[in-house]
Amino acid sequence: MYGPGDVRVEERAAPRLVEPTDAIIRVSAACVCGSDLWPYRGIEEMQWPAPMGHEYAGIVEEVGDEVTTVEPGQFVVGSFWATDNTCEICRAGYHSACVDRVPMGALGAQADRLRVPLADGTLVATPDIPPDDLVASLLSASDVLGTGWFGAVAAEAGPGKTVAVVGDGAVGLLAVLAAEQLGAERIIAMSRHASRQRLAREFGATDIVEQRGDAGVAAIKELTNGLGAHSVVEAVGTQESMMQAIHATRPGGHVGFVGVAHGVALDGMDLFWSLAHVHGGPAPVRRFLPELIDLIWNRQIDPGKVFDLELPLDEAATGYRAMDQRDAIKVLLRP
Amino acid sequence: MYGPGDVRVEERAAPRLVEPTDAIIRVSAACVCGSDLWPYRGIEEMQWPAPMGHEYAGIVEEVGDEVTTVEPGQFVVGSFWATDNTCEICRAGYHSACVDRVPMGALGAQADRLRVPLADGTLVATPDIPPDDLVASLLSASDVLGTGWFGAVAAEAGPGKTVAVVGDGAVGLLAVLAAEQLGAERIIAMSRHASRQRLAREFGATDIVEQRGDAGVAAIKELTNGLGAHSVVEAVGTQESMMQAIHATRPGGHVGFVGVAHGVALDGMDLFWSLAHVHGGPAPVRRFLPELIDLIWNRQIDPGKVFDLELPLDEAATGYRAMDQRDAIKVLLRP
Repeated sequence: MYGPGDVRVEERAAPRLVEPTDAIIRVSAACVCGSDLWPYRGIEEMQWPAPMGHEYAGIVEEVGDEVTTVEPGQFVVGSFWATDNTCEICRAGYHSACVDRVPMGALGAQADRLRVPLADGTLVATPDIPPDDLVASLLSASDVLGTGWFGAVAAEAGPGKTVAVVGDGAVGLLAVLAAEQLGAERIIAMSRHASRQRLAREFGATDIVEQRGDAGVAAIKELTNGLGAHSVVEAVGTQESMMQAIHATRPGGHVGFVGVAHGVALDGMDLFWSLAHVHGGPAPVRRFLPELIDLIWNRQIDPGKVFDLELPLDEAATGYRAMDQRDAIKVLLRP
Repeated sequence: MYGPGDVRVEERAAPRLVEPTDAIIRVSAACVCGSDLWPYRGIEEMQWPAPMGHEYAGIVEEVGDEVTTVEPGQFVVGSFWATDNTCEICRAGYHSACVDRVPMGALGAQADRLRVPLADGTLVATPDIPPDDLVASLLSASDVLGTGWFGAVAAEAGPGKTVAVVGDGAVGLLAVLAAEQLGAERIIAMSRHASRQRLAREFGATDIVEQRGDAGVAAIKELTNGLGAHSVVEAVGTQESMMQAIHATRPGGHVGFVGVAHGVALDGMDLFWSLAHVHGGPAPVRRFLPELIDLIWNRQIDPGKVFDLELPLDEAATGYRAMDQRDAIKVLLRP
């Protein structure tokens, strides 16, 4: 990306092993993330030009001398953070704050080759080379599925719970899928787009609320005996969506927020009186990867459905435009 | 209270049963709360004159026809909210957001007689009339102990955890006691007052940090291998104390905040990157009362030590002044 709105695909030097813990992978599929739209829209500053992309799945080509858990020829999925998976923070399940973490975005996963630092702690191999129709789902585990899953876990979605999801982007839709897998009793998707509502229902939504803001909160309360949802996933990252999430949560309930909270300020008194639990941030996807890969491999979930536009990598600029204008939920790029 | 700084003790009409679910109690001991200082200092608006006080323990004098769990002659402790203890929110342990709640502060517990609505759901009787040396501790369960306890529970203090407590008022000190009872491995009290540090150590603090703000955060990190505490209790309610709490928490750790958050704004991005869990609000003291009364009755804890000034109710104005000027940690008033 050369600046807001300016995405170019160009030849760059092939990545090479730098550290003995690195792996080089041939990217089978990459994609455009909702968070890539922040710089694309000029809301987030970067040093231009910047390599883009942090979601990836592909075949290992080469590994450094110290890599022991993956080998050339394996199909692997990694998180958008490279992590050691051994530090105290990783062991507690918070890989996204690993003391050795490296942001994959800086390396640029929207490419045909990718260097993955800390390969042992970052990559998870699938049982075999996947059939082509599983690749999109496996790619989704790299971020959007893992992030939606974390949102649902952070919101403590589970049996007996009413879960509301604010945001109908790929992450919000996959939070619906996660809530369903986690056993939620009722899942309310907040969406005003017919195609996204349809996908939310496919993923397990039992109710749809089209209203936003205070009207959206009132609608959730009406569906929950005046109390609010037990669990609310926030998957947008704006002031309005965050307030909608907190106010739609019952006292003692849980907000899981995974939208990158740009320009959001939480009023302390409001939070105090809400008595909600609030937890979120960059998803520790690596924690969930083995489980998510299993679910996909066994065809128990089909998160790849969020990709409604597939383009060759060369047409990445078109993909960004489609996401920006919400013509596409999620764009898959094939190198 | 007739206005900021203006506390008067005067004769008012004796409270009488209004609802069949009410009880009238003869107050054995009441006290001044840190939160009473907000209006006293003119930071919180009230409609003047306002009856004051929401912490109480005493003898039941009279009960309404529908009251079944307490009876005249019993010694009882109640929370600062009157609650039904039967609604869905109470059953989930969040009595402070009971759908039928009544704030006891509006009734004025700094008095010799007090009407307690929803007596069955609010009051807990002690096994017998307590010896005089237990009264202060039982009174503390009404709010400061229950609130500190909730802070420690919200921060998920427990075995193996390092717990930091921001705030050395009665609530903060009792959060130290709670963390110790909950089995925390290490308890860091943040305090710069020798007498409060001493009490913190008596209650179980293993370390004292005198610095505040960023320096306080740095000190906590230094004590925790650079990672931050697992659990941090915030018991002040200012912007600085809240930031101190969040920044002193390791990724994936828990902040329990029980300071009434006046003028506090949490930056969404800051919270996002902290990966902390944040939970707090008005403490659901009723949830903990039976357990706390047991611990006090069996002399396993001595939270009454936070009362370092005892005055006759007539001298309530002196008590407010002592709390305001931090000459006293907590003032007990005897009607």
